[in-house]
Amino acid sequence: MTTVSAATWLDVPADHPFGIATLPYGVFGTASDPDPRVGVAISDLILDLAPAVRVLAPELAPAVAGPSLDTLLAAGPRAWSRVRALVTTWLTDAGYSDRLAPHLVPARDAVMHLPFTVADYVDFYASEQHATNLGRMFRPGQDPLTPNWKHLPIGYHGRAGTVVGSGTDVVRPSGQRRGADGEITFGPSARLDIEAELGFVVGTPSRLGAPVDLARFDEHVFGACLVNDWSARDIQAWEYVPLGPFLGKSFATSVSPWIVPLAALEPARVPPPARTVPLLPYLDDAATPPWGLDVRLEVRLNGHVVSRPRFEGMYWTPAQMLAHLTANGASLRTGDLYASGTISGERPDQRGSLIELSWGGAEPLRLPDGTTRTFLEDGDEVVISASAPGADGAVIGFGEVRGRILPAHQAPR
Amino acid sequence: MTTVSAATWLDVPADHPFGIATLPYGVFGTASDPDPRVGVAISDLILDLAPAVRVLAPELAPAVAGPSLDTLLAAGPRAWSRVRALVTTWLTDAGYSDRLAPHLVPARDAVMHLPFTVADYVDFYASEQHATNLGRMFRPGQDPLTPNWKHLPIGYHGRAGTVVGSGTDVVRPSGQRRGADGEITFGPSARLDIEAELGFVVGTPSRLGAPVDLARFDEHVFGACLVNDWSARDIQAWEYVPLGPFLGKSFATSVSPWIVPLAALEPARVPPPARTVPLLPYLDDAATPPWGLDVRLEVRLNGHVVSRPRFEGMYWTPAQMLAHLTANGASLRTGDLYASGTISGERPDQRGSLIELSWGGAEPLRLPDGTTRTFLEDGDEVVISASAPGADGAVIGFGEVRGRILPAHQAPR
Repeated sequence: MTTVSAATWLDVPADHPFGIATLPYGVFGTASDPDPRVGVAISDLILDLAPAVRVLAPELAPAVAGPSLDTLLAAGPRAWSRVRALVTTWLTDAGYSDRLAPHLVPARDAVMHLPFTVADYVDFYASEQHATNLGRMFRPGQDPLTPNWKHLPIGYHGRAGTVVGSGTDVVRPSGQRRGADGEITFGPSARLDIEAELGFVVGTPSRLGAPVDLARFDEHVFGACLVNDWSARDIQAWEYVPLGPFLGKSFATSVSPWIVPLAALEPARVPPPARTVPLLPYLDDAATPPWGLDVRLEVRLNGHVVSRPRFEGMYWTPAQMLAHLTANGASLRTGDLYASGTISGERPDQRGSLIELSWGGAEPLRLPDGTTRTFLEDGDEVVISASAPGADGAVIGFGEVRGRILPAHQAPR
Repeated sequence: MTTVSAATWLDVPADHPFGIATLPYGVFGTASDPDPRVGVAISDLILDLAPAVRVLAPELAPAVAGPSLDTLLAAGPRAWSRVRALVTTWLTDAGYSDRLAPHLVPARDAVMHLPFTVADYVDFYASEQHATNLGRMFRPGQDPLTPNWKHLPIGYHGRAGTVVGSGTDVVRPSGQRRGADGEITFGPSARLDIEAELGFVVGTPSRLGAPVDLARFDEHVFGACLVNDWSARDIQAWEYVPLGPFLGKSFATSVSPWIVPLAALEPARVPPPARTVPLLPYLDDAATPPWGLDVRLEVRLNGHVVSRPRFEGMYWTPAQMLAHLTANGASLRTGDLYASGTISGERPDQRGSLIELSWGGAEPLRLPDGTTRTFLEDGDEVVISASAPGADGAVIGFGEVRGRILPAHQAPR
C-alpha cells in the first residue's frame, strides 16, 4: 500500500495528529442532527461520511450507512481500502472542495459515541514489564512471570456489555476484598486504577474451527483504538484465583471514539523485542515478518502527565495475539475487540497503571498541583492519548480516551 | 403465581416432560417455512407463537415477533407472565382448539436454532464438590477450595461468540499444552471434556452502576436452559494461571434449544445447602428466602448414562450468582447468559465432567458397550438432558443439549 503524502486542500498543519495521513473513523451526532453516524476526522473537522459517499461513490454507500461502524467493519479489507483511498482523494484534490464542504462539521460541535457494537472483548497481558511488576506485587516470593508467559500471549475474556465510550463517567465500584488483617468486607474499592492499553477492532469474521494465521491479520483487523481498562485492585486480588479477573474489571472499560485504520499505522511498524524462548510454529513470526507498533501514549491525571508508555516494547505483537485467540478454532465476529493489556516500559515513568506507578501504593505519586496519589480518588479525571509516527514527518494521532471517577453509589454494605 | 394444573385438550400424558406445566420457549424453522421463529413446546408439537398471538392477542404480537427470543426476553416479566398465561389458557380450553390447530407443528419436522442472541456469557463455579475435585487435581497438595470460594460465587467471562445451538458438531480444538515431561507442544487436545451445567438467561437489562439485589432476580431472569461447557483440560491446565481459562473453553459452548421459564420451575425450588461461613449482606439470602432448584440431569455418552448430577446440591443459588455478577455495578443486557459451572454431587456417579468421572484419567470409565473412556474420543456424542418436579406429579422437562466430536482440523503444528 502506498503511503499517503499528498497535502490536503484544507488548512492543516503538516504535523496535525488528525492530518491527511490519519483519517480515523468514529461515530458522531450534532445538536442539529443528533442521529449517530459515521465520520472521518480531518484536523478539527469531521467528514459526515454517508452523505458524501452517497453523492461521490454511491456503490459504497451501504458500507458506511447506519448508526455505527458495524457495517464498515463487516465490509472487509477491500472496502476499507476503497473508502480510505476515496476520502484521501477527496481531501487532497481541491476540485472536491465545493462538494465536500457541506459535509464537514466542526469537531467541537459533535457528540461522539461508542463507535461500534462490541461483540466479544478479550484483554491480553502482553507487556513483559507490566506482567513482571504485577507478578511481584500479587505473588511475592514467586517467579514474577508464570512459566507459560513467554510461550503464549496470556489473555482472558472481559465484559463486552460494559465497554463504554470516552467521556462516560465511571462510578467507583464496590465489591468484596480481604484486608491486610484478613477481614473480608464489602465496600467501595480503595484501590481503583487505570490500565493504559491499545485495542484492536476485528472487522472480518472467521469461521468456527478455522484459526487465523499470523499472516492473515490484515484480512481481519480493521484498526486500533485506545483502551482504559479500569481495574479495582482490591476486588481483583481477592477474587482472581483460580478463574481470573471478574468484578475487578467488569464494571467499566473505556475506549477512544476514533478508530485508527491499520493502513495509517504502516509507517509505525517496528520489530518487536527479541524473543528469549523459542515459539511454537503458530506463534513464530520470524518469517511473517513480525511487527509491533511505535505508538507513544501519554497518561494524564487531572491534567498532569503521570506516564508515557510506549507500545513498541510489547513482547507479543497484535498478530500473535489474534493467532493465539483463534488457535483453538474460536471464531471471530465483526466488532470483536481485543486489547493489549497494560503497556508498561522499563522506566518508572513508562508504567501504564497506578499500581505500578505507586508500587502497590507504597510510593505515592506527587502531582505538580501538590497533591499525591496512590490510586484514583473521586473526581479524578484520567485522559490517555497517543500518537505514532507517519511518513515524511506526519503524526498519526489516536485522539484520547477520557473518564472521570464518580463516588460509589451507596455506603458499604 | 398460581401453579398450573389444568389439563390440556391435547392428548398429553400427565408426566410428559413438555406437558402443560412446562411450556418452554425455543426458536424453530420447518422445511416448508425455514424462517426461524418463536415456538412453545407442548408434548411432541410446537406452537408457532407469532401467528397464534397475532390472531388471539394482537397487543402482544410485538413481544413474540422476530427470528429469536430476543424481543420476548426484552419485553420483561409482565409480558412473560401474560404470554405464559395466554398459552396455558389456549391449550387447556378446548374452545381454542380449532384456532390453534393450524399453528401446531410436529416437533420432529422442526429444525431448532440457537434461541437468543448471547450478549455476555459468564460461567460460575458454584458446585462445592466440583470445585473440590478440580482443586485436588489442578493444585495437588494445596487446599482444594481457594480461600475465597465460600465467600463469593467465583465466576469468569467466557466467549459469547462461540455459544452454539444443540446439535452443532464440536471440532476437537488444538492448542498449547505442557506434557508430563515438561515439553510444550501444540496439537489436538488429548483431554477433551464436558461440563454439565444449567444456564440462566437474562431478559430485563439493568443500569450501569446499579447492582441487582437478591430479591430482584425474578425481574431480570427469564428462564433456564442446559449448557455443555466443553473444556480442553490440557490446554486449560497450561494457560489458566494467572488470568483464568481462555482457549481451554472458548472453542465451543453448547446450549439446549428450549428455555424453561422461571415460572415453570417454581415447584422445583428447594433450600440450598447450609452455608458454612457467614455471608456479606449482598449475598446473605437468609431473608429472601433462599432457593436452589431440584433439577436432575442425565449425561449420556454414546447413549450410555455416565452421570446423574443434581442441581439441588449447588452451594450458590442462581440469585446469588446474579447479585454477585452485578455487585460492582456491571450492567445486564438482554441475552446475557450465565451458567452455574459443572454440577457435581457427592456420589461418583453424580459428577458432571469426565475429568472427575475418570479422576483425571486415572480411573477410566467402562461403558456398557465394552469400551472405556477417560476423555472424549472423535465421534463421541454427548447428550445432557434434565427434568424437575412440577406440581401434582407433573414433570418439567428441559429437553436436551447434544454435541458430537469431530476430529481436529489439522495435524499438530
